[in-house]
Amino acid sequence: MAKTTPGRFFEDYAVGDVLHHAVPRTVSGGERALYHALYPARHALYSSDEFARGCGLAGAPLEDLAAFHMVFGKTVPDVSLNAVANLGYAEGRWHLPVYAGDTLRAESEVIGVKQNSNGKSGVVYVRTRGLNQRDDCVLDYVRWVMVRKGDLEAPAPETCIPELAKVIPAEDLVIPNGLDFSGYDFALAGEAHRWGDYAVGEQIDHIDGVTIEEAEHMLATRLWQNTAKVHFDTTARPDGTRLIYGGHVISMARALSFNGLANAQMIVGLNGGAHANPCTAGMTIRAWSEVLDKAETSAPGVGAIRLRLVATSGGAPFQLKGEDGKYRSEVLLDLDYWALMPL
Amino acid sequence: MAKTTPGRFFEDYAVGDVLHHAVPRTVSGGERALYHALYPARHALYSSDEFARGCGLAGAPLEDLAAFHMVFGKTVPDVSLNAVANLGYAEGRWHLPVYAGDTLRAESEVIGVKQNSNGKSGVVYVRTRGLNQRDDCVLDYVRWVMVRKGDLEAPAPETCIPELAKVIPAEDLVIPNGLDFSGYDFALAGEAHRWGDYAVGEQIDHIDGVTIEEAEHMLATRLWQNTAKVHFDTTARPDGTRLIYGGHVISMARALSFNGLANAQMIVGLNGGAHANPCTAGMTIRAWSEVLDKAETSAPGVGAIRLRLVATSGGAPFQLKGEDGKYRSEVLLDLDYWALMPL
Amino acid sequence: MAKTTPGRFFEDYAVGDVLHHAVPRTVSGGERALYHALYPARHALYSSDEFARGCGLAGAPLEDLAAFHMVFGKTVPDVSLNAVANLGYAEGRWHLPVYAGDTLRAESEVIGVKQNSNGKSGVVYVRTRGLNQRDDCVLDYVRWVMVRKGDLEAPAPETCIPELAKVIPAEDLVIPNGLDFSGYDFALAGEAHRWGDYAVGEQIDHIDGVTIEEAEHMLATRLWQNTAKVHFDTTARPDGTRLIYGGHVISMARALSFNGLANAQMIVGLNGGAHANPCTAGMTIRAWSEVLDKAETSAPGVGAIRLRLVATSGGAPFQLKGEDGKYRSEVLLDLDYWALMPL
Repeated sequence: MAKTTPGRFFEDYAVGDVLHHAVPRTVSGGERALYHALYPARHALYSSDEFARGCGLAGAPLEDLAAFHMVFGKTVPDVSLNAVANLGYAEGRWHLPVYAGDTLRAESEVIGVKQNSNGKSGVVYVRTRGLNQRDDCVLDYVRWVMVRKGDLEAPAPETCIPELAKVIPAEDLVIPNGLDFSGYDFALAGEAHRWGDYAVGEQIDHIDGVTIEEAEHMLATRLWQNTAKVHFDTTARPDGTRLIYGGHVISMARALSFNGLANAQMIVGLNGGAHANPCTAGMTIRAWSEVLDKAETSAPGVGAIRLRLVATSGGAPFQLKGEDGKYRSEVLLDLDYWALMPL
Repeated sequence: MAKTTPGRFFEDYAVGDVLHHAVPRTVSGGERALYHALYPARHALYSSDEFARGCGLAGAPLEDLAAFHMVFGKTVPDVSLNAVANLGYAEGRWHLPVYAGDTLRAESEVIGVKQNSNGKSGVVYVRTRGLNQRDDCVLDYVRWVMVRKGDLEAPAPETCIPELAKVIPAEDLVIPNGLDFSGYDFALAGEAHRWGDYAVGEQIDHIDGVTIEEAEHMLATRLWQNTAKVHFDTTARPDGTRLIYGGHVISMARALSFNGLANAQMIVGLNGGAHANPCTAGMTIRAWSEVLDKAETSAPGVGAIRLRLVATSGGAPFQLKGEDGKYRSEVLLDLDYWALMPL
Repeated sequence: MAKTTPGRFFEDYAVGDVLHHAVPRTVSGGERALYHALYPARHALYSSDEFARGCGLAGAPLEDLAAFHMVFGKTVPDVSLNAVANLGYAEGRWHLPVYAGDTLRAESEVIGVKQNSNGKSGVVYVRTRGLNQRDDCVLDYVRWVMVRKGDLEAPAPETCIPELAKVIPAEDLVIPNGLDFSGYDFALAGEAHRWGDYAVGEQIDHIDGVTIEEAEHMLATRLWQNTAKVHFDTTARPDGTRLIYGGHVISMARALSFNGLANAQMIVGLNGGAHANPCTAGMTIRAWSEVLDKAETSAPGVGAIRLRLVATSGGAPFQLKGEDGKYRSEVLLDLDYWALMPL
């Protein structure tokens, strides 16, 4: 019996399958420290237990994106080891903050399959849930990837494309229990701008840039126990470059967005996202944001803001697509998310 | 309203202003582990809870320089984002050890301003205090930086230059409560040399060298939430190099000084310091020390030693300045500090 | 009195000497997080407190190899600072899991010396023990190194070569108290292969590769407080390269072996090991394993498996030595160890 696995191919997925992903992970202060070393992350709610307590939480949670990466990483061996492309995200919601001492695991349900017309690959849709040691769902999201067929003779499955919300309605966002921004300390948080200061359509250039190193993205990607070999092995691609995990770009852009969005504290919804172009070491990452929507919430002092977060490797801000309707070559990421902000 | 800030300019500082710096930070074992991964740090008091307890402390504190960097990092957005140069330090004292679970924040008072004769910049003096969650001062120091003017037409302020002690008198050093070196374990600490074995004027070549990588100084600088873009962004300077945070050199040199000063355990005073030349990746850092003074303390078995710590990127040890009175080109750092040592 | 030490030379060792190594270290969640960032480590018992509890332990221990590196690092200043070569390991056993909060120190007894016929160096054998804060032995092993003579005129000592077991008998392996794999969760662990599925002589290609960066191996080696300058200082060798700590290759290969040996959870014995060729940054590390032996244990559901773990920098798997009987040039490591697996 072969002891290693080449990963799953398109014909290995059937709608309704539930994949129980391996390698649970207990988090500690170590993951928080590393997250702050890897990204210029400065949102106060995740940096200070005292600040978080002042907002009604038990302490500073693990960064929402770190929780996401940790859950995502567990799915890689079962979902995207043979993926040609990570096509999209939808309906992502964070349900519970993750604290030091929590143990995360993940499972995914196959919710859609569609073979490509070339017969060589297909698209697989999964809804992934991250669970803690009490089997509570801490976050869930839908992801779809293009996966190679292993056996080109395998019959095409019946096409099933799930209906996915373009945007999570604000009323469906989960506000952490007890969250209260009515005594929010804007000075400690770093900026005075509150929810009411942002207008739909407003664009923000986050100014700062970070040049990316090989060692850093590999440290990050391993920390999430993501095993996709293109991130680590220079012999895996003909040109000898390592592709940087898309989540590394997401976290870098989000951290850079502190400058202008310091009070967009908690990420609670992921409406969609595209990794528009590959990222490699040596690129200098910048970010800009656009306010897509705003909504009130039931929690005291807490508003929701829907943001487009764009990461680039150069060029001017606020340029997303060319005349051909395609992403410009310097655009790395186009993310659509909901965050919580003090009113 | 602009959501990002270009930072403060010279004309934005007035003597007496108090700046409340943003982004408090809770520390954990993660910061300690990272500090040990980033620097060849081996002082036993900071490595072992048991050793620290044997010296009368509650456990191993966060490295004194890590606490310094953390406080320093918080001041960057308000003090040195538009700094042309970090000119000096004085009157630095550590008042309380920082333990896992503590939350640090920082505030600075402007204590001096002096516009340069060219009318384009000026020098700003601030006294910065690091505070824990109980509002106790854990460390304070004076720093002065040269800052660009944003509005060249802004009138020059009245010159005010604070009187600063060249050296902190030994009797003003704060010895941590309970510190007791009378049962100090020299074998576990790594060297037999005690306070009485060092003579004023003695010079020590610390022998070892470490070649610096981009990924490492960026990890360190981000860990302290220092946002100065010259450390991260290869497009920020015409020559495409990243300047390494001066504090990275301080910590590297201090860690290298273990070999010969393993028992100079706690840093309690910072008399002054100059970043003599810029440091960039690829340089191999070495260090040498000179004993500047010695003093007794009131704590059992504890002596104070005043040390010059010099970091270089090459050349022979014990060479500081050229015939022109200027620092030699290979000298990166000239630091003057007080440490506590077993008698 | 010279304050720094050039390290010990061959003539400084005598059989029966006990070296008490310096710088004890308290471990926390920080070391675990860093280990996972540095290596693609995914063994569930070390990743999840819940999984470890399900196997009868108090929580997830520090990785066995991290404990080994930490103990090994402490011995470097006393044993291998002037080592020409690290020649071998034998009789290594792990006696107790290391948990967050434990403090490790190390001591070594010189158990053999043999001057080389050239009169310029000799071989020193030491048995090293890692001890926790309760003075319990957590691991011990024999290592022998070739060390330069400092004084070529020093007389040759009487040759003493210890008798060392080629392989630790399975009945001498220490099974952690309470370890119980009878309720082992293979799905969470990541592979279905149990002890009974492996045959003596079976070979496993672990497929994945990781290209190594300078920053990463230095972070790792410093984390273990290993001070050997060849790992850090590009000026230490004529060709300007840094030699990568052999333990970095061990940990990388072990982590890569997850793919095919995910259930070889705990390392309990080190029968031998050779660093066949030097490793430098830029190499892409791969690994293959061979089952050398199997044995039952007294613990419920727990079997022992003896494995050869080979790390390479290229070439085909399963090629170890050339026709000349020497290790092939791409072989970096040949390690012989015992692990515990669910039956």
